[in-house]
Amino acid sequence: MTPAEFAARLAAYQARVEQALEARLPLPSEVPGRLHQAMRYSALGGGKRIRPALVYAVGELYAAPLEALDAAAAAVEMIHVYSLVHDDLPAMDDDDLRRGRPTCHRQFDEATAILAGDALQVLAFESLANAPAGAEARVAMMSALATGSGTQGMAGGQAIDLAAVGRNLDEHEVEAMHVRKTGALIETSVRLPALLAGAGAEDLTRLDRFSRALGLAFQIVDDLLDVEGDPALLGKAVGADRARHKPTYPAAVGVERARERALELEGEALAAIRGFGDRASMLARLAGYIVERRS
Amino acid sequence: MTPAEFAARLAAYQARVEQALEARLPLPSEVPGRLHQAMRYSALGGGKRIRPALVYAVGELYAAPLEALDAAAAAVEMIHVYSLVHDDLPAMDDDDLRRGRPTCHRQFDEATAILAGDALQVLAFESLANAPAGAEARVAMMSALATGSGTQGMAGGQAIDLAAVGRNLDEHEVEAMHVRKTGALIETSVRLPALLAGAGAEDLTRLDRFSRALGLAFQIVDDLLDVEGDPALLGKAVGADRARHKPTYPAAVGVERARERALELEGEALAAIRGFGDRASMLARLAGYIVERRS
Repeated sequence: MTPAEFAARLAAYQARVEQALEARLPLPSEVPGRLHQAMRYSALGGGKRIRPALVYAVGELYAAPLEALDAAAAAVEMIHVYSLVHDDLPAMDDDDLRRGRPTCHRQFDEATAILAGDALQVLAFESLANAPAGAEARVAMMSALATGSGTQGMAGGQAIDLAAVGRNLDEHEVEAMHVRKTGALIETSVRLPALLAGAGAEDLTRLDRFSRALGLAFQIVDDLLDVEGDPALLGKAVGADRARHKPTYPAAVGVERARERALELEGEALAAIRGFGDRASMLARLAGYIVERRS
Repeated sequence: MTPAEFAARLAAYQARVEQALEARLPLPSEVPGRLHQAMRYSALGGGKRIRPALVYAVGELYAAPLEALDAAAAAVEMIHVYSLVHDDLPAMDDDDLRRGRPTCHRQFDEATAILAGDALQVLAFESLANAPAGAEARVAMMSALATGSGTQGMAGGQAIDLAAVGRNLDEHEVEAMHVRKTGALIETSVRLPALLAGAGAEDLTRLDRFSRALGLAFQIVDDLLDVEGDPALLGKAVGADRARHKPTYPAAVGVERARERALELEGEALAAIRGFGDRASMLARLAGYIVERRS
């Protein structure tokens, strides 16, 4: 796969999930219009769509039907977007800028941002409930989404993150935080299409190993970009973690070791899916892209 | 059924859902402990548990298995509690007192309250995903819960409520708001056990008519209690709606007409379930209790 072919495929995934989100988000012309606007403002027209891309790339392993993958891709992105909307609130990270635009509560207001996040979370589960797939597969996906986004997953990771502000965490503690805060939803994004396709236990084990390594690498790269990234590319300020005394991977082990660890984890992730052979070539490229990205 | 028998049955429902919640809420001894504490603080040991009581009472119509009803009862109560936690936030209603105790964000902090609400919402869906019932029934229940709590239901009602502050709404507009804000989750509480039991179309129609009337009556009574209730019984301040210029039913039509309308709706609700005969006696008593309550 040439770089141009990879880029085209990624763009196709991005276009596809944009449409899937658009089709599921309530219209701004419907009551309550302001809430619907805030949901659409936050979910549409931006973002790298890494989680949906993982859904589609894993779906390709099994030639899973695209319409069902759309439901899963929209669901993980809605959960991701809702978490950004809530994390940006004044009581949490108090961010003004996201993807180069005012954050939801800056563009609308705090109450609307809280409700928009709440409603996006519901809509994620609704998207899976209505997926064109068997009831068993839908229940399995909803159960996995709940695990990935609850207190043992994303919401729990954010709570650990908040509790850790101003403390010095060691490498092990930062990893434990990252595994939940970002890793859990990355793992869910890989798991949903496998559950949808009825993948066997061996495949699920491989994919879990892949996504666990990738999820951690993803967050380490995010931490690194906050130290050395380009604000113009990122669409948000850098240095925010340090300014807030947030525990990060580079803060715990240094920038050099953090870079090294991200590459180690990329290697682990690729090794985990080697057994799939050529079927996983897009998935492998995507993993490389996630670790080597500049924004 | 004597008043004492009704009270004993209601108390049994309340004890049962308390146990169902307790069993599903993560332990405070597990990481992240503070988040788990906030969830338990908000969900356990208080509240009238009206929504769970509806789940159990409708379940009795079909002699539905109690363990599956527990999952549905816990789910609707978790959604209700999460909505209270978020509605009480400073950016929303800014309430300090709930059920006679400090609200979640006053007892903990705002960030924890936001996350506790988020995590309770996930846990509601997880409770249904893991219910001891067939996959089809679980999907149907999760889909109904999503509809009842999303922008066409509870979250949408709260958005309409916020947008209406300071405006004068007429009777029709206030009803449209109440139908979503409170009515939708009452309807869901009645619908889940019917879906669980595989109720037929005729039964679902009857139950929908029942719950629509009851949900609206419930909110009108809530509005009336805010005007003329006893703060000691309510565990919160009264007069808060007027102080905040919130549109309420009594404000739109006057206290007398509001009382009359609540009784009319009680009559409609009871008429809708008459066809069930004696099987629905507990459900009918519960409807009377909801409309005639003093707290």
